[in-house]
Amino acid sequence: EQCCDRPKNTNVRISLPAVCFVWQIAMIILFGIFIRYNEESDAHWIEHKTSKNISSNIENDYYFRYPSFQDVHVMIFVGFGFLMTFLKRYSFGAVGFNFLIAGFGLQWALLMQGWFHSLDPMDGKIKIGVESMINADFCVASCLIAYGAVLGKVSPVQLMVMTLFGVTLYAVEEYIILSLIHARDAGGSMVIHTFGAYYGLSISWMLYRPNLDQSKHRIGSVYHSDVFAMIGTLFLWMFWPSFNSAISDHGDGQHRAAINTYLSLAATVLTALAISSLSQKTGKLDMVHIQNATLAGGVAVGTAAEFMLMPYGSLIVGFCCGIISTLGYIYITPFMEKYLKIHDTCGIHNLHAMPGVIGGIVGAITAAAASEDVYGKEGLMNTFDFTGEWKEMVPTRQGGHQAAGLCVALCFGIGGGIIVGCILRLPIWGDAPDNSCFDDEIYWETPATYSVCTSTSSNNPCLGPHNTVNIVETAWHHHLL
Amino acid sequence: EQCCDRPKNTNVRISLPAVCFVWQIAMIILFGIFIRYNEESDAHWIEHKTSKNISSNIENDYYFRYPSFQDVHVMIFVGFGFLMTFLKRYSFGAVGFNFLIAGFGLQWALLMQGWFHSLDPMDGKIKIGVESMINADFCVASCLIAYGAVLGKVSPVQLMVMTLFGVTLYAVEEYIILSLIHARDAGGSMVIHTFGAYYGLSISWMLYRPNLDQSKHRIGSVYHSDVFAMIGTLFLWMFWPSFNSAISDHGDGQHRAAINTYLSLAATVLTALAISSLSQKTGKLDMVHIQNATLAGGVAVGTAAEFMLMPYGSLIVGFCCGIISTLGYIYITPFMEKYLKIHDTCGIHNLHAMPGVIGGIVGAITAAAASEDVYGKEGLMNTFDFTGEWKEMVPTRQGGHQAAGLCVALCFGIGGGIIVGCILRLPIWGDAPDNSCFDDEIYWETPATYSVCTSTSSNNPCLGPHNTVNIVETAWHHHLL
Amino acid sequence: EQCCDRPKNTNVRISLPAVCFVWQIAMIILFGIFIRYNEESDAHWIEHKTSKNISSNIENDYYFRYPSFQDVHVMIFVGFGFLMTFLKRYSFGAVGFNFLIAGFGLQWALLMQGWFHSLDPMDGKIKIGVESMINADFCVASCLIAYGAVLGKVSPVQLMVMTLFGVTLYAVEEYIILSLIHARDAGGSMVIHTFGAYYGLSISWMLYRPNLDQSKHRIGSVYHSDVFAMIGTLFLWMFWPSFNSAISDHGDGQHRAAINTYLSLAATVLTALAISSLSQKTGKLDMVHIQNATLAGGVAVGTAAEFMLMPYGSLIVGFCCGIISTLGYIYITPFMEKYLKIHDTCGIHNLHAMPGVIGGIVGAITAAAASEDVYGKEGLMNTFDFTGEWKEMVPTRQGGHQAAGLCVALCFGIGGGIIVGCILRLPIWGDAPDNSCFDDEIYWETPATYSVCTSTSSNNPCLGPHNTVNIVETAWHHHLL
Repeated sequence: EQCCDRPKNTNVRISLPAVCFVWQIAMIILFGIFIRYNEESDAHWIEHKTSKNISSNIENDYYFRYPSFQDVHVMIFVGFGFLMTFLKRYSFGAVGFNFLIAGFGLQWALLMQGWFHSLDPMDGKIKIGVESMINADFCVASCLIAYGAVLGKVSPVQLMVMTLFGVTLYAVEEYIILSLIHARDAGGSMVIHTFGAYYGLSISWMLYRPNLDQSKHRIGSVYHSDVFAMIGTLFLWMFWPSFNSAISDHGDGQHRAAINTYLSLAATVLTALAISSLSQKTGKLDMVHIQNATLAGGVAVGTAAEFMLMPYGSLIVGFCCGIISTLGYIYITPFMEKYLKIHDTCGIHNLHAMPGVIGGIVGAITAAAASEDVYGKEGLMNTFDFTGEWKEMVPTRQGGHQAAGLCVALCFGIGGGIIVGCILRLPIWGDAPDNSCFDDEIYWETPATYSVCTSTSSNNPCLGPHNTVNIVETAWHHHLL
Repeated sequence: EQCCDRPKNTNVRISLPAVCFVWQIAMIILFGIFIRYNEESDAHWIEHKTSKNISSNIENDYYFRYPSFQDVHVMIFVGFGFLMTFLKRYSFGAVGFNFLIAGFGLQWALLMQGWFHSLDPMDGKIKIGVESMINADFCVASCLIAYGAVLGKVSPVQLMVMTLFGVTLYAVEEYIILSLIHARDAGGSMVIHTFGAYYGLSISWMLYRPNLDQSKHRIGSVYHSDVFAMIGTLFLWMFWPSFNSAISDHGDGQHRAAINTYLSLAATVLTALAISSLSQKTGKLDMVHIQNATLAGGVAVGTAAEFMLMPYGSLIVGFCCGIISTLGYIYITPFMEKYLKIHDTCGIHNLHAMPGVIGGIVGAITAAAASEDVYGKEGLMNTFDFTGEWKEMVPTRQGGHQAAGLCVALCFGIGGGIIVGCILRLPIWGDAPDNSCFDDEIYWETPATYSVCTSTSSNNPCLGPHNTVNIVETAWHHHLL
Repeated sequence: EQCCDRPKNTNVRISLPAVCFVWQIAMIILFGIFIRYNEESDAHWIEHKTSKNISSNIENDYYFRYPSFQDVHVMIFVGFGFLMTFLKRYSFGAVGFNFLIAGFGLQWALLMQGWFHSLDPMDGKIKIGVESMINADFCVASCLIAYGAVLGKVSPVQLMVMTLFGVTLYAVEEYIILSLIHARDAGGSMVIHTFGAYYGLSISWMLYRPNLDQSKHRIGSVYHSDVFAMIGTLFLWMFWPSFNSAISDHGDGQHRAAINTYLSLAATVLTALAISSLSQKTGKLDMVHIQNATLAGGVAVGTAAEFMLMPYGSLIVGFCCGIISTLGYIYITPFMEKYLKIHDTCGIHNLHAMPGVIGGIVGAITAAAASEDVYGKEGLMNTFDFTGEWKEMVPTRQGGHQAAGLCVALCFGIGGGIIVGCILRLPIWGDAPDNSCFDDEIYWETPATYSVCTSTSSNNPCLGPHNTVNIVETAWHHHLL
């Protein structure tokens, strides 16, 4: 067996239940004080409808957004969850901790986002509806992206802490970007992806483990774990049009955002595969690229999806991002690990950080180039929400505001990540030693057949011929029972 | 090899095709006599629309309910099907027989529920539409819950019989509870979960196998079967808001039911994980709890989801059920097996029975506490359907009716299960001997690589060193071919 | 190792990236020239709405069709992709190449179908919206069906060529069938399934490999690959009602199509299982039948789903197709391989070709039998679109046109497949030698644990006792690392 220089206590039997219980009770209390149904989900709706002259129940926002909400929900739980199951021995942690983070995060997000966006001045309550649920899922997405950078290297308690601060930071940066700066970001290239990715990367940098190569035999996939990961990839890919259109304007806004995302993602598939094949001497494809880089087009079209990006514009964005993201997996991830001391388990720098920044830039350019000719007079005001205090806004200045929004997302991600990373370095969180990373056995009851795997290393001494029977016996137990 | 005291004939070559063909032909005849399209799915809709002054096709109930229907459909086939794939050698049976039960059950449910609920007095025909399909899926859900208790221990023919009677009993109890007693149960805590779970548990009790420990080496999971089961868990979890809102009132009713369910389930995740971790000396999590107990909040909020339960109320329900359900897996399931002679393969007592009863009680309390202050005058009438012959109903009395509904569900479940269990004890159904339970090889053609597994027991004599080559060879064949 | 008579170059490092890049750039250029948003997805919609007196954003076609679109999208990428993962060593190729084909095909389909169906005469542009995306996905479906016949035997470059021509042929035959002949085919029994299946079978016939038995040890499943395939099966099965209703008429048309498909598929499950059980001496079920034949009812009800087929009519269609399709797997597939030299990897002849033709015939009969009595005067005109130049059409003649449409689909499928098959026989495409078919290692970087598998054959010499240690070591490496 490999020995472990610094023995660590990975027992989370007190800390994990304590965090879960205390925080969940806090949620109940805060929800009791602050959160109520909005008028479209309150039983008074039937009276409200009459008073507002709404002709039909179908005008309830529920029918405009619920199908998209469910698609987003699938992306959060199955999409992100299964995308991370690719590691040979960390599938439980991937899908299970993803579940935990999201389950907690969405509650805290409803509160945090509610305080900033949906506080009813009449009674001081947060009023929630279907759009709040989508926004909470969006907020959680940024924390799950961050999880991708530290997958297999942190304890569930650390993940809860990371989510608590992540959601808090998200709500603030979102408020600054969308409300104060008045940037538009329907699909969250900046608010979700740029912020989430740099938040995770900064944390991973703070938590850098110089001796992680003691666990390197567990980094990598087995045949079926790669197939499981494709479930995540495909549900993300397929439902991304719903993600980018879920909270855009009723009518043409949602319609256009779905089309742009659909097209961008299609182009990404082709260029990601092309670069993947090009990068190997024999032209073979790499599942890591198929699982991840094919999604970059959805990230990068997030901000501009609701704009008149034009179908060919979407294809161009997807085209470029498929190339950049795949090259990132080939060149940038190893570079970052070796020279910048940032280990990025899932390669979120290639899938979320770079495409997110590109998305912010594309959004700024598209906004700056908007004209009444293309959008129509009303369409321009409607799409960019040039109303109220922003009535005097013009497209070129909007472009500048978009760029400012991108900077805010970057600052919050990097700054927040460094601070939270410091907190997570405290030796109280029960994280695994360097030789037990990426190993479900640390935090999970594993099937009886699992144990034999954890003592394996590429130069395992028991592989000699003197030990055949033992191996056979364990192999037998492992696979056949 | 283990020997088998009572050799059993598990050949279903005559009985299974016979049941499938005869019952399917009966369905065709009965559908021919009784079932027609309702006015919203009939080609006359275009004229009907004009005559009823309906302004747009979007007012067709299809657009209010179809997205929820598809989500429910996924829960029935992928959700329940994959949730049960956790057993190492019963994944074909889990997903395959689930498919068979649901395929037959939904047809029979359309007829049975139609006779009670949608018979057109004008022409004596049952008129079906999107709501009928949802209700048929709901009815099937109760039979699939029951399947969870007997998973791996019954033949497909027994499952068909169980479904035939289950659907019949369901339609009657549903009629009594919803129409005669006028209880509300949009998400079916009582009608679906309580009934289905006690129906299954009673059958499992009647079919108790004292020598089931001969198959105990097949009870349990392997690493990837646990990941497959998470597909089922997550699709159930994610789409449960659609389940509980699928047939509630248009507008705020559906909207509110979705929100309440979303919140309740989120809280359940945290408390289920907390108890799971607490229950192990080393704080490790157990996949059985993650796969099942995280769903209890959706069950328990079923009845009250459309009421003004309030967001914090939903969180409290989820909070409690996560705890109770996980404790059930730890303490009650082994107790029931040992002392009550009820073997519950999937632990449906913890996931459906207890949370279902809690859901009924929560519904009764919430209904009894309803006030015009909270709901509004019209909202109260609308939510509880205090119209027609129930015009004089008041919330406190409604609470009593809810409680009465719960009792009916319990009685039908237990009573029906005992009777059907007696029928299923007849030695004609082709069920497996005690040493061949939880084994796909009994009813399925398995890949050539499967066979080596079925002769395995923990004290298999061939594991000695004299037999290395054979083992290696079988291992080789098993895994590498 | 087995030797290979004709060594082949399977290196696609130049050809695959070249095809992807060049074609994707061509797409961008053509989209730039031709494709624009339609009026419901353009920012001018807000003005357009006022001018056309449309009262609400909910009247945007997006809300009528987007939920169905997403279901169809899942069928294309997860449904078809995972259905083909059943092979023990071709899961990467199944789901990955499926992804590639669909990603390219949908772009080319938007152009091809746009030129025929959505060219705006005012400005010569193709105007796209949600219905275009559904139609593009439909078109891609036909190419993925064709992929099923040649799965594991062709290179990704061949698949791209096959898709390029397949989409082109599809657009032409669709135009002839739907526009020139005025046949109705909402669910595409003829246009999608008949065409796609015969296109694939003809190509497979042209590419017949007499020495394919050198790869026969890789044809077949392992336990978990069969479970993966069930993910595909179930998502296809569940969402088929959305497939058949996605582009049918708003209101009762979509509603009825969903009901008919739901019922037909339910009946198919029972008869497919019945025949599967009957066909084995011991009554065991075969996963191949469950995975495939259970879907035949959805194919066969495609054309008639929007007609007044009646619920019992749908059951009858499903009943028959479950039987025919399963018998096809048992008798016709081996027959075709042995005597007709057509190797059909996934059995698309049983799942798509025969049920597609049946669907065309059912559609013709149902159309010919339509009457004002059943449909209503307006309903008949509405359902069959007897408007404009087809105002004088009568049901009996419509039946003839339906039959003519079926013939066109057959001719295009067979003729097109033969021509494209000739092209694909050129020795430049990098396809695998006969002894390396159905093997992911040819085109994919596989996990380190994969390699040991590819040299395996049933009479592998190294299985002798002199080699125990090596085997153990490789087994160890294969499974435990």
